[in-house]
Amino acid sequence: MYYCDSRLQYPVRVDKPSPIFAKMLQQAIGGIEGEIRVCLQYFFQAWGSRGPKKYRDMLLQTATEEIGHIEMLATAVALNLEGAPVSMQDAAAKDGAVYAALGGMDPRHFLSAGLAAMPVNSDGVPFDCSHVYASGNIAGDMLANATAEATGRTLACRLYEMTDDLGMKDMLSFLIARDTMHQQQWLAVIEELGGFREQLPVPNSFPQSKELQEYSYAYFTSQVDGSVPADLQGSRFTEGSSLDGKGQYSIFPNRPLGQEPKLAPGPKEAHAQTEQEIGLIAKVKQAIVG
Amino acid sequence: MYYCDSRLQYPVRVDKPSPIFAKMLQQAIGGIEGEIRVCLQYFFQAWGSRGPKKYRDMLLQTATEEIGHIEMLATAVALNLEGAPVSMQDAAAKDGAVYAALGGMDPRHFLSAGLAAMPVNSDGVPFDCSHVYASGNIAGDMLANATAEATGRTLACRLYEMTDDLGMKDMLSFLIARDTMHQQQWLAVIEELGGFREQLPVPNSFPQSKELQEYSYAYFTSQVDGSVPADLQGSRFTEGSSLDGKGQYSIFPNRPLGQEPKLAPGPKEAHAQTEQEIGLIAKVKQAIVG
Amino acid sequence: MYYCDSRLQYPVRVDKPSPIFAKMLQQAIGGIEGEIRVCLQYFFQAWGSRGPKKYRDMLLQTATEEIGHIEMLATAVALNLEGAPVSMQDAAAKDGAVYAALGGMDPRHFLSAGLAAMPVNSDGVPFDCSHVYASGNIAGDMLANATAEATGRTLACRLYEMTDDLGMKDMLSFLIARDTMHQQQWLAVIEELGGFREQLPVPNSFPQSKELQEYSYAYFTSQVDGSVPADLQGSRFTEGSSLDGKGQYSIFPNRPLGQEPKLAPGPKEAHAQTEQEIGLIAKVKQAIVG
Amino acid sequence: MYYCDSRLQYPVRVDKPSPIFAKMLQQAIGGIEGEIRVCLQYFFQAWGSRGPKKYRDMLLQTATEEIGHIEMLATAVALNLEGAPVSMQDAAAKDGAVYAALGGMDPRHFLSAGLAAMPVNSDGVPFDCSHVYASGNIAGDMLANATAEATGRTLACRLYEMTDDLGMKDMLSFLIARDTMHQQQWLAVIEELGGFREQLPVPNSFPQSKELQEYSYAYFTSQVDGSVPADLQGSRFTEGSSLDGKGQYSIFPNRPLGQEPKLAPGPKEAHAQTEQEIGLIAKVKQAIVG
Amino acid sequence: MYYCDSRLQYPVRVDKPSPIFAKMLQQAIGGIEGEIRVCLQYFFQAWGSRGPKKYRDMLLQTATEEIGHIEMLATAVALNLEGAPVSMQDAAAKDGAVYAALGGMDPRHFLSAGLAAMPVNSDGVPFDCSHVYASGNIAGDMLANATAEATGRTLACRLYEMTDDLGMKDMLSFLIARDTMHQQQWLAVIEELGGFREQLPVPNSFPQSKELQEYSYAYFTSQVDGSVPADLQGSRFTEGSSLDGKGQYSIFPNRPLGQEPKLAPGPKEAHAQTEQEIGLIAKVKQAIVG
Amino acid sequence: MYYCDSRLQYPVRVDKPSPIFAKMLQQAIGGIEGEIRVCLQYFFQAWGSRGPKKYRDMLLQTATEEIGHIEMLATAVALNLEGAPVSMQDAAAKDGAVYAALGGMDPRHFLSAGLAAMPVNSDGVPFDCSHVYASGNIAGDMLANATAEATGRTLACRLYEMTDDLGMKDMLSFLIARDTMHQQQWLAVIEELGGFREQLPVPNSFPQSKELQEYSYAYFTSQVDGSVPADLQGSRFTEGSSLDGKGQYSIFPNRPLGQEPKLAPGPKEAHAQTEQEIGLIAKVKQAIVG
Repeated sequence: MYYCDSRLQYPVRVDKPSPIFAKMLQQAIGGIEGEIRVCLQYFFQAWGSRGPKKYRDMLLQTATEEIGHIEMLATAVALNLEGAPVSMQDAAAKDGAVYAALGGMDPRHFLSAGLAAMPVNSDGVPFDCSHVYASGNIAGDMLANATAEATGRTLACRLYEMTDDLGMKDMLSFLIARDTMHQQQWLAVIEELGGFREQLPVPNSFPQSKELQEYSYAYFTSQVDGSVPADLQGSRFTEGSSLDGKGQYSIFPNRPLGQEPKLAPGPKEAHAQTEQEIGLIAKVKQAIVG
Repeated sequence: MYYCDSRLQYPVRVDKPSPIFAKMLQQAIGGIEGEIRVCLQYFFQAWGSRGPKKYRDMLLQTATEEIGHIEMLATAVALNLEGAPVSMQDAAAKDGAVYAALGGMDPRHFLSAGLAAMPVNSDGVPFDCSHVYASGNIAGDMLANATAEATGRTLACRLYEMTDDLGMKDMLSFLIARDTMHQQQWLAVIEELGGFREQLPVPNSFPQSKELQEYSYAYFTSQVDGSVPADLQGSRFTEGSSLDGKGQYSIFPNRPLGQEPKLAPGPKEAHAQTEQEIGLIAKVKQAIVG
Repeated sequence: MYYCDSRLQYPVRVDKPSPIFAKMLQQAIGGIEGEIRVCLQYFFQAWGSRGPKKYRDMLLQTATEEIGHIEMLATAVALNLEGAPVSMQDAAAKDGAVYAALGGMDPRHFLSAGLAAMPVNSDGVPFDCSHVYASGNIAGDMLANATAEATGRTLACRLYEMTDDLGMKDMLSFLIARDTMHQQQWLAVIEELGGFREQLPVPNSFPQSKELQEYSYAYFTSQVDGSVPADLQGSRFTEGSSLDGKGQYSIFPNRPLGQEPKLAPGPKEAHAQTEQEIGLIAKVKQAIVG
Repeated sequence: MYYCDSRLQYPVRVDKPSPIFAKMLQQAIGGIEGEIRVCLQYFFQAWGSRGPKKYRDMLLQTATEEIGHIEMLATAVALNLEGAPVSMQDAAAKDGAVYAALGGMDPRHFLSAGLAAMPVNSDGVPFDCSHVYASGNIAGDMLANATAEATGRTLACRLYEMTDDLGMKDMLSFLIARDTMHQQQWLAVIEELGGFREQLPVPNSFPQSKELQEYSYAYFTSQVDGSVPADLQGSRFTEGSSLDGKGQYSIFPNRPLGQEPKLAPGPKEAHAQTEQEIGLIAKVKQAIVG
Repeated sequence: MYYCDSRLQYPVRVDKPSPIFAKMLQQAIGGIEGEIRVCLQYFFQAWGSRGPKKYRDMLLQTATEEIGHIEMLATAVALNLEGAPVSMQDAAAKDGAVYAALGGMDPRHFLSAGLAAMPVNSDGVPFDCSHVYASGNIAGDMLANATAEATGRTLACRLYEMTDDLGMKDMLSFLIARDTMHQQQWLAVIEELGGFREQLPVPNSFPQSKELQEYSYAYFTSQVDGSVPADLQGSRFTEGSSLDGKGQYSIFPNRPLGQEPKLAPGPKEAHAQTEQEIGLIAKVKQAIVG
Repeated sequence: MYYCDSRLQYPVRVDKPSPIFAKMLQQAIGGIEGEIRVCLQYFFQAWGSRGPKKYRDMLLQTATEEIGHIEMLATAVALNLEGAPVSMQDAAAKDGAVYAALGGMDPRHFLSAGLAAMPVNSDGVPFDCSHVYASGNIAGDMLANATAEATGRTLACRLYEMTDDLGMKDMLSFLIARDTMHQQQWLAVIEELGGFREQLPVPNSFPQSKELQEYSYAYFTSQVDGSVPADLQGSRFTEGSSLDGKGQYSIFPNRPLGQEPKLAPGPKEAHAQTEQEIGLIAKVKQAIVG
């Protein structure tokens, strides 16, 4: 279970409020690269963890940390919205910048939230929990977590570049540092478990003898003329030993290994057009007549 | 641009059609671990690639390969639906297995598709493209791709265990092999670029001097009593050199570094309740009177 | 504005309630082929109609009719849910059919709605209004409406086949008849306006001289070997005069008319990996050195 | 910021695991009546609170409590999934109950989560954050919270009836008690602020002199024949003093107060069909000729 | 069933068309606080009503009224879009206000709708029917309806403040008045049924003896240090008799009542990593060795 | 299976990059009128085709062509984003046009994609696959395809009008031409199968004797006063022979053919309020007493 402290994880200060930057910050709250996502992802991984117990503990600590990050960003959005235009008349009367702010801000920041953060991204699309990855396979989950933190840090760096508000830059410098660590942390679990050599392919518990090993380490090219693009030859993924040490990379210009599929005509209850059934009869006739 | 061959990438055969297994296979088509997702993800990464050109080429080949995987799975679903119950009367008249099939299949396989695959997951939720990760940062994108293939292979292995149809097991053994390679392939790009040592933190183009480095390699614990769970001590992510070789892991029992946030009262146009404004006035009075 | 009568458009009777059929009926309420969709689609087309006034009138009548169809189906769902299992204990104690009903029904019919209809499809996915087509172009909108009624009637026919309840068959025979008329009705508008000869291509107000007419009536084939599938030759869409009488159908084996795209490297603020920029430098060097 | 304790808020025990009940419990996690929703709703209300400070404090305490409820339910789902069928062969070999379980369980519990909870509802639809109400108006928000707890308690009671597992009933008896309190709590805030007499209409800060007061306390009937249904006469909402004491309820048989709307024809750039413009010309002609 | 009149419920007039205000008005159509939502919510509550019959009648009248409100708003949007920029060239040639309008309007108002309303919110997100609350419990539903009208009136008041168009203010003054009544109306039903004293907790048909009454009227605090925030003491919800008169409010500083959860390891078919199973073996060994 | 060529289907050139036009182009990628939709729709129709084989072939060719259209548009978006503002400081320092661009562009183009296309519409809403129509009925599917191309061409024409970039106009003139052909192509299939006379009503395989033919060709009016709007009389859809030649159009002023619905009270496990059950008791009493 959980506890709170009414103070913030790290100071949040806005020197020059900007409703447009408020809209951008929403991506770090409700975007797929954002904090609601990692928070729920780590929680669901922890709550579904079937061992080893250590990783449940690890996940719980960080999931809990992330709630505080959402809180920081929500505070930052609310502060950026102070002074936002709330009347078209005011906007028109003032300079173009106010009018542009009115057009460029998320209208729901005023209309729906009364000048506060919402669990949506910077296009106003609500976060949906299909983005919470928790597969029960620790290597897959750690890769998903590292991905989330990589896209998260990229987003935070772009936000850092976009703003010239010193308070916001300070807050982001903290969040960027935490994203650095979280990338390190999740990938270190894979390292702790033996690295890619032991952990790949995910899941490593499925016997590779059951997969069609002929194609397990072959890079398929799909060029229409059967050629292999020159710059792909001699790559780490087309030659030499595989990362898991269990195979040799090769190149396979792709071609059909199967046949044209044949589906039986549907039952009459599915009500295709009559002509689709007639077509069938014609085919049957043809088959008989030869 | 693109071309087709009417033959399948690999043979698809169903020995014992099962509408319930058809429903399960949908996860590999329209699920977040599925083939529509990787197909579109690799395409959008390729189409947005701003260099090096080599990686656009690499992505295009594999994106194109993935269309053929969706096609295989769609064919497998259609074949599994042949003979599915299309009348409650029939179902009731037959044995319980038919009735259970009627209750357990996706009703839209009959009602909406006339016994064919749909771009939805095994719960019938349509795939939505928010799951397409293409950030323009190659390390982040390669991690996202490896994640997609890790969850994809885990899904394929679970489907393999669920079925006892030899045709389906054969098809899955091919797809599992391709997922093995694709994991190898995307992670090999990171390796080719110098491995985690060079590529972390993502993005590696943001100067770490601008992040709050004091917290860049610290594992934050959130235990209510300030303790550090014993099993987390001495972990790869709490001690020793970081994966990128740029820091030393440490442990930081978390505490508030910031203050309680103070938001200004909203403008009257936002129409909070009058009492919220009165509350404010009271507070101001109190501050004056002491 | 609008009025109601508390009686139903047409009698709704359920002889043998079935929670599984209740789930299936949901597709006709909240599915993309369902009645909420056509109701809102016709309303939004009417409300946005910028002339001729006649079509606003026509649309309003039918939109209003459709509310009554949703009502009929919602009533049918509620009646089918009477007697549904509401306790696992009861289900287990009774025969397998009850248990199968429990597994096969939409659990939210009990949990969320207390045994009533919901605005969701038969997989429980809520209807979302992105499916409301109202483009302001009457020919496009009439085609969209005819499509909606074609998929709607196909759905209703499949539901008719699925049930053996005489009450339900009677209700569906009415709804199927209305779908017949609505198909006739929307397509008759196109006929009234001169048929496909006048109305195609949609929009017919864009001067065809501005489109690349060389490709306006050519069927593009995409076969990898440049061949044209034999069964496509001599088709209505590959030879002879086009439907709008403005061109001749032909076949064009597709090939790239454009070049390989070249995107400029992104700005540093977008934070690709450093190696992506280095790659660029390398290319520049190469270009200089030759 | 936030802290965790690895113990649960209240004991979670499952005596007879049931994958079908696991699916039902999902509604209490990721359904609109569920715990993720209230947790995020209370957090966003707190984080956006612009005073009085007291209510931020109140909301934070309860939001934090709710995380522990999600955790309890996620644990309950995971325990109910132990022993779930993971192979169709096993299911077929065993009795019908196992087969029914296979058809009735959420397939993604196995395929996507490896037998753990997911942030989805009992139909497998992911929670999306559009359901988080935080308007900045405390009376509106308290009503929204009371609604959430009312639907939440109704759901919990239905789950209680559905199961015969004593462990689950015990857990639910705790959650039901908490929903009781939370209803009391949010409505008590309205009471504390003067009750409906002071707080209605929401927002009470908009001067009623600016609304069209003629229609502010009139119940509009929409009967096609202009009648007023007999059972509605003499109701609390059709006669006597209004709840806010500021008006008298009355009945108004509805009729159009406005005219037929007239929209100007669209600009040519919007590309309606030519005939739509011709229609316009005809109308203009008619207006001229009379 | 239903009928229409081609005239509007109330006059809609726009003096100074504004595509940015058109975008804002969309929130009142397709937003969660908007009219599509209440219209469908009241209809589904009516159509699923299992008594008393009076409330079906009441709901039908108001649901029907709401269609006319959507119509008014859709008309207002269409009128506000007249004269909107439909060419970037025009926009650039004119003053900055036109250019700002182009950037600030919803591009789909032109691109998708040809200058008409759409069933989306002011961020362009389509309305989805998960927001339709109809639980079959009348007290819960009335609270949901009052909530919808409270957020709806707050939205309408904010729109009123945002615009300086007299026609729009007139239209909004009517809608605001109707929202006043609808709040009164739904809460009056609760009053009619005995008020909160009789109706709480919702559902009042679940015997409170079955809930864990020890926690039914206790406000849980979650402060990390176990303290109770001073401003929460002595509140209506922490002391005195509960609203339903069935308990006494108290304060309970929260603490874990349960234990650390223990989930069994997953079956091999779920394919966690091998190391997760090894972890298990280790634990088993440990248990044996002691 | 499938192949690629790294060259584009048709040249893509942008003379004057515009991030606002980039946002608009997104509608043609991820909008419901866009290319992802038609691409997947034609693929799923092909993959589920149960005959005649000819139509599978036809669909595959065009589905494959459409991938190349998405690619062209994605390239156009990326080129339009070159030079987009990536810092608020730059924007403020420059003229108003840059600031308007910052407010008017999709912020995720920079924040999430690093200046590249995304599979979303021009409001930033991700494409979701519920828009993929593939019913297994060829006439219904061809209508759906013609609809998609009609809305697609309307969108492309509007984009053509919006831009004054010659490169973009050239690209659009190609896409518009292809949309012309695709409309011709899908409708020609209906023609090939006998035209509307043979193909209507869809599905034509359901015996019309089973529908309630009394209402199969009647236009229902819903006017509150029972009148028929004058401009609807004498229309193609109210008089004369129906399009399928199987009936005569007529007008039916709508009226209730059914009764007021009566739903049984819910079971106690559904937990309506006690008063709802009391209502029931009252009704039972009344029935007894008479």
